Amino acid sequence: MRNIRMLLQYEGTRYQGWQRQTSSGNTIQGKLEALLGKMCNEPIEISASGRTDAGVHACGQVVNFHTNSQMPVDEILSYCNRYLPEDIAVIEVSEAAPRFHSRLNACGKCYCYRIINSKIPNVFWRRYALEIPEALDLAAMRKAAELLLGEHDFKSFTSAKKGKKSTVRRIDEISIKEEGDLLTFTFVGNGFLHHMIRILMGTLLEVGMGQRMPESMTDVLNACDREKAGPLVPAKGLTLMEVYY
Amino acid sequence: MRNIRMLLQYEGTRYQGWQRQTSSGNTIQGKLEALLGKMCNEPIEISASGRTDAGVHACGQVVNFHTNSQMPVDEILSYCNRYLPEDIAVIEVSEAAPRFHSRLNACGKCYCYRIINSKIPNVFWRRYALEIPEALDLAAMRKAAELLLGEHDFKSFTSAKKGKKSTVRRIDEISIKEEGDLLTFTFVGNGFLHHMIRILMGTLLEVGMGQRMPESMTDVLNACDREKAGPLVPAKGLTLMEVYY
Repeated sequence: MRNIRMLLQYEGTRYQGWQRQTSSGNTIQGKLEALLGKMCNEPIEISASGRTDAGVHACGQVVNFHTNSQMPVDEILSYCNRYLPEDIAVIEVSEAAPRFHSRLNACGKCYCYRIINSKIPNVFWRRYALEIPEALDLAAMRKAAELLLGEHDFKSFTSAKKGKKSTVRRIDEISIKEEGDLLTFTFVGNGFLHHMIRILMGTLLEVGMGQRMPESMTDVLNACDREKAGPLVPAKGLTLMEVYY
Repeated sequence: MRNIRMLLQYEGTRYQGWQRQTSSGNTIQGKLEALLGKMCNEPIEISASGRTDAGVHACGQVVNFHTNSQMPVDEILSYCNRYLPEDIAVIEVSEAAPRFHSRLNACGKCYCYRIINSKIPNVFWRRYALEIPEALDLAAMRKAAELLLGEHDFKSFTSAKKGKKSTVRRIDEISIKEEGDLLTFTFVGNGFLHHMIRILMGTLLEVGMGQRMPESMTDVLNACDREKAGPLVPAKGLTLMEVYY
């Protein structure tokens, strides 16, 4: 059996996230599996590097699936792009090693969270960025972000239910790029918990608005208590940029 | 009576262009006039720097209207953005001189036409850029563009019906910026005829694909014949960036 690896791009706006649902949910995995099943003439199960939540976008989601189909990779690519809805695109298709697994082999990820920092709406970014009218103290946000770097227990920054799974992760980079009104927050790390970036952003925004001291980040980390962190910000500003292997 | 000037941003995808229609067309002018009429409690007629066609976007459309309303400009701005659909935004509102007219006083305009030059679709640019899978010879396109600079009769490059109006215009700049797959063509001139930029782009693309020599631009200009120019490219790649006064 072949193991096919694909690089995907999607706009999450219309979808209930990546993961297929037992009921009739409109999901990206569901769309792709239905199409690939037809193409390969056999049931297809796709693994992704990670689930993205409803409304979250992807520039570089990595997935893989096993198939008996002999269709060449470039034909798979053009077949998919011919039949997929216009908010999902396949960017690359390649043969993967038999044991390659898009989730288990991922060693890191890069996400961007975008903000339009203006009192004025921006029609072109409205689906991809959160609008924040209040002035933000970026220096304070950068100071707070620095305290999050390295390996920590990020239990305070996840909506995941209590479980046996480790909530320790390593963040290698949190950077803020300003281009006019557009702020791009880039997060690079070895993995992110459920809702982690959106809660980190909610907490950083409280710092930016002067509602919380940058130094308080260390207390939030140490508390291991979701209540101590800031709010979950909307999904639409979040984009999975790249998965590292 | 006050003369109010506004700077507008809109995504043209959903609209039948700028200009209000007698029938029940979904137009940007129609939406705005209805809202401003309600706000000012009197019928409002808006002038724009120029009509944009169905599907064309604007980052910096300039409009003006006369009103007896005493509402301060910043309240007009926030009122509009509260009630306008999310694909139209008011960026600035100011008091204009009594004789200011957004169309008659405009002395130049800047438009961008965007292309995703790739065999692979781009979900994030799909509403704002035309996808061209074929390789493009940008050097040839730049050579052709140069021949269009200056004052010329652009009769070959318009869909406008024969009439008494002059088809002479001056183009000051045509530049091509490459950012990965994204090509941005910037057109600056003292004014553009109906469909002019989209037919210029269609003709430049023929040059880029090797279907036409760069030097042929001069013949097309001289012919004053729409048949000699290339095709009209789709509206979605076109954005009105700025109007000069």
